[in-house]
Amino acid sequence: MTKHLLATALVLAVSAGLAAAPGPPPSWVEAERDAASRLIGAALADHHAWDRLAELTDTFGNRLAGSQSLTDMLAWAAAQMKRDGLENVRADKVMVPHWVRGQESAEVMAPVRHPLVMLGLGNSVGTPPEGIQAEAIVVRSFDELEAARDKVRGRIVIYNVPFTGYGETVRYRSTGASRAAALGAVGMLVRSVGQPGLRTPHTGALNYDEKVPKIPAAAVALEDADRLQRIQDRGGTLVVRLTMGAKMLPDAESSNVIAEIVGREHPEEVVVIGGHSDSWDVGTGAMDDGGGIVAAWEAVRLMKALGLRPRRTVRVVLFVNEENGLRGGLAYRDQHQAELANHVLMLESDGGVFRPRGFGFTGSDGARAVIRDIASLLAGIDADRIGPGGGGADIGPAVEAGKIPSMSPDVDGTTYFIYHHTQADTVDKLDPMDMARCVAAMAVMTYVVADMPQRLPR
Amino acid sequence: MTKHLLATALVLAVSAGLAAAPGPPPSWVEAERDAASRLIGAALADHHAWDRLAELTDTFGNRLAGSQSLTDMLAWAAAQMKRDGLENVRADKVMVPHWVRGQESAEVMAPVRHPLVMLGLGNSVGTPPEGIQAEAIVVRSFDELEAARDKVRGRIVIYNVPFTGYGETVRYRSTGASRAAALGAVGMLVRSVGQPGLRTPHTGALNYDEKVPKIPAAAVALEDADRLQRIQDRGGTLVVRLTMGAKMLPDAESSNVIAEIVGREHPEEVVVIGGHSDSWDVGTGAMDDGGGIVAAWEAVRLMKALGLRPRRTVRVVLFVNEENGLRGGLAYRDQHQAELANHVLMLESDGGVFRPRGFGFTGSDGARAVIRDIASLLAGIDADRIGPGGGGADIGPAVEAGKIPSMSPDVDGTTYFIYHHTQADTVDKLDPMDMARCVAAMAVMTYVVADMPQRLPR
Repeated sequence: MTKHLLATALVLAVSAGLAAAPGPPPSWVEAERDAASRLIGAALADHHAWDRLAELTDTFGNRLAGSQSLTDMLAWAAAQMKRDGLENVRADKVMVPHWVRGQESAEVMAPVRHPLVMLGLGNSVGTPPEGIQAEAIVVRSFDELEAARDKVRGRIVIYNVPFTGYGETVRYRSTGASRAAALGAVGMLVRSVGQPGLRTPHTGALNYDEKVPKIPAAAVALEDADRLQRIQDRGGTLVVRLTMGAKMLPDAESSNVIAEIVGREHPEEVVVIGGHSDSWDVGTGAMDDGGGIVAAWEAVRLMKALGLRPRRTVRVVLFVNEENGLRGGLAYRDQHQAELANHVLMLESDGGVFRPRGFGFTGSDGARAVIRDIASLLAGIDADRIGPGGGGADIGPAVEAGKIPSMSPDVDGTTYFIYHHTQADTVDKLDPMDMARCVAAMAVMTYVVADMPQRLPR
Repeated sequence: MTKHLLATALVLAVSAGLAAAPGPPPSWVEAERDAASRLIGAALADHHAWDRLAELTDTFGNRLAGSQSLTDMLAWAAAQMKRDGLENVRADKVMVPHWVRGQESAEVMAPVRHPLVMLGLGNSVGTPPEGIQAEAIVVRSFDELEAARDKVRGRIVIYNVPFTGYGETVRYRSTGASRAAALGAVGMLVRSVGQPGLRTPHTGALNYDEKVPKIPAAAVALEDADRLQRIQDRGGTLVVRLTMGAKMLPDAESSNVIAEIVGREHPEEVVVIGGHSDSWDVGTGAMDDGGGIVAAWEAVRLMKALGLRPRRTVRVVLFVNEENGLRGGLAYRDQHQAELANHVLMLESDGGVFRPRGFGFTGSDGARAVIRDIASLLAGIDADRIGPGGGGADIGPAVEAGKIPSMSPDVDGTTYFIYHHTQADTVDKLDPMDMARCVAAMAVMTYVVADMPQRLPR
């Protein structure tokens, strides 16, 4: 059996090799190989990217839209970018929502009294200072909520929905409060949307339905959700008190911070690379998305440091307010409307600068073939895979308005939803070498798209 | 090569099998096989142990010495033990220290301001209400502290010592405050003694040296310790504020809760099985050591439920105050002094009721041979390994005073120091089937030692 398996494996390995074996890259790709090698070598020569992210997060901490720490970090970033020799460094004004958490707590009051480990959801309204106290009902799905609709009025609804993937589970966080409020609920708790942790609550935005009353809402740790479920299953009456000082202040002034290397032949044609500067107000926003903005910035810094000026302009954008408003992405679209036709490609890193495998790409087949050719330059760092879809929340509005090809790094995100929107999103969760690989991949991809003779087809 | 390796592996496997192959067990072991099988079957038939631990921890939460929750839990446990039909259920009075945490926080004030994730150390003194604020110095070892001894006066000392094993690293937590105070330090922070977590601080006891001033002390998360180190390494002046409402109240009344199955032939000979009822005041003390006391209790409950009354008395003891005083273990020694000569064996579970591999045993070679024979009854659940050393903090004083053979379950503790003394020590971290295996192993070992014809030799 072993011998047979070995033979089969050999055949499979050989066919896989053959199937993946690329033809010789076009000559324009070969012409970029030297620049690509220099970018890769410079990125991997030290831990500059990680060190810069550590300095950023150690110094400014988390950076929610409207916070002083975000304002301070953006000023620091712009100053550093100028010191790096980047061009046209500027801050495009953006008004952002200004939500503040305030003091908050949640506690089971009956059948026994014990504290819950919680984080209020972003954009939530607060409670009266003394909190709200009500009988609670735990449901495992919207179907269970619907089945219990006659028991919801006046209660706090607790969604205890196991994490089966962000897209599937996040709708309880984002819409659960209003769906419960529509049935008369007075408050909402949701099992944190994330992988199992260490009593680790995950915050994140909720979206109120304007047609129903806004009720306060918070996430609880998985362990607490399970404990609440067990108490209910044992037949006790569950009473919960929720106290949240959260409030939405008037919009605050902020900005998209932008810097460029101006193209030597087609300065009006632009390749955008970026991430978002804001983070939730817990942890230090290192993974989400400090790593993304620093990696994008580093990619451009390396081009400058190596004296590589591409044919087209490369623009790094630190979009603001991805987490609870997307005002940066919307403002970029509106403020750069006239330029969008000349946006060749937009690339956003917002999935954590973990070990890269390549990129996801959204665009025409013709463009994809070109991107594949460029990716062949990244085979040496195992980052040459081009997956079916790429993009990002911040580049979304411009990409949609301008029909612009879009991409994002494809990384090993195995641990992403352990740290996402938690106190544990800190720089140590990112590996310096993996981050350097992301910088290398982003630098090569961006530089070659900006530098190759032909414009990337739409 | 593959063929050769396979052949070698086969030879190794066969020799290993031969080497491990035991002789036929003595007839007295064979005579216990039916009882052992019934105990194993009953333990594994359902999740009763886990469910009881869930009910205990869900209902009473954490249980620091002196707390109302501990008092309530002990009363509940005694009542449940009576309902289980256990005999001589009683509470031996023990006076315990009564430390309370109070409000607490720590914050970096300069070079930038940001909160630290912390937990005060048990038995620490508090600070004035406004906290203490001082320049801080980060050291990686006592040697570094010594080298910096001229810079310590008036400062807060931060020990940033990587976790290399509990025994090695815990001395910074337990003695670090007084060693810093001896050089004039005014406060102490220690990198949490535990495996990497999710910004998870680990509390635990400190021991003051009475000859130097008592300074307030707290643990910070690993991530925070590293951040402090980086800030110092960048050359900034580090200023920290520590605020702790901790205080030691007068001793409180508590108890060791005890229940028995009285031996049918030698009721005066006692096999003790137990764990500790108290926990730190974070998490719900499920692993440390709710699981231990419930598993010990379950082992005895199963004997009773199956109508198995051994020759000797089996006594389950829920020792109190292991975490910050060991008063339960000391009181047991003193209150049962006259009985110690008739204590045949003491077994404590305080390493988490994870998947068992067998037991650690401390005793004479003759006793070890007998224990090995008994363990052969546990081969079916892979819990038949008898390792070199066994015991526990709570049984320690009696074991030492009475020269009593001692043992403890040997479990897969890979994750133990992730949860140890944290908010994340909750029942979900334990697997119901693994816990049932622990119950089975403890029940069989305890029952057979109590029931076999000969007394376990000293």
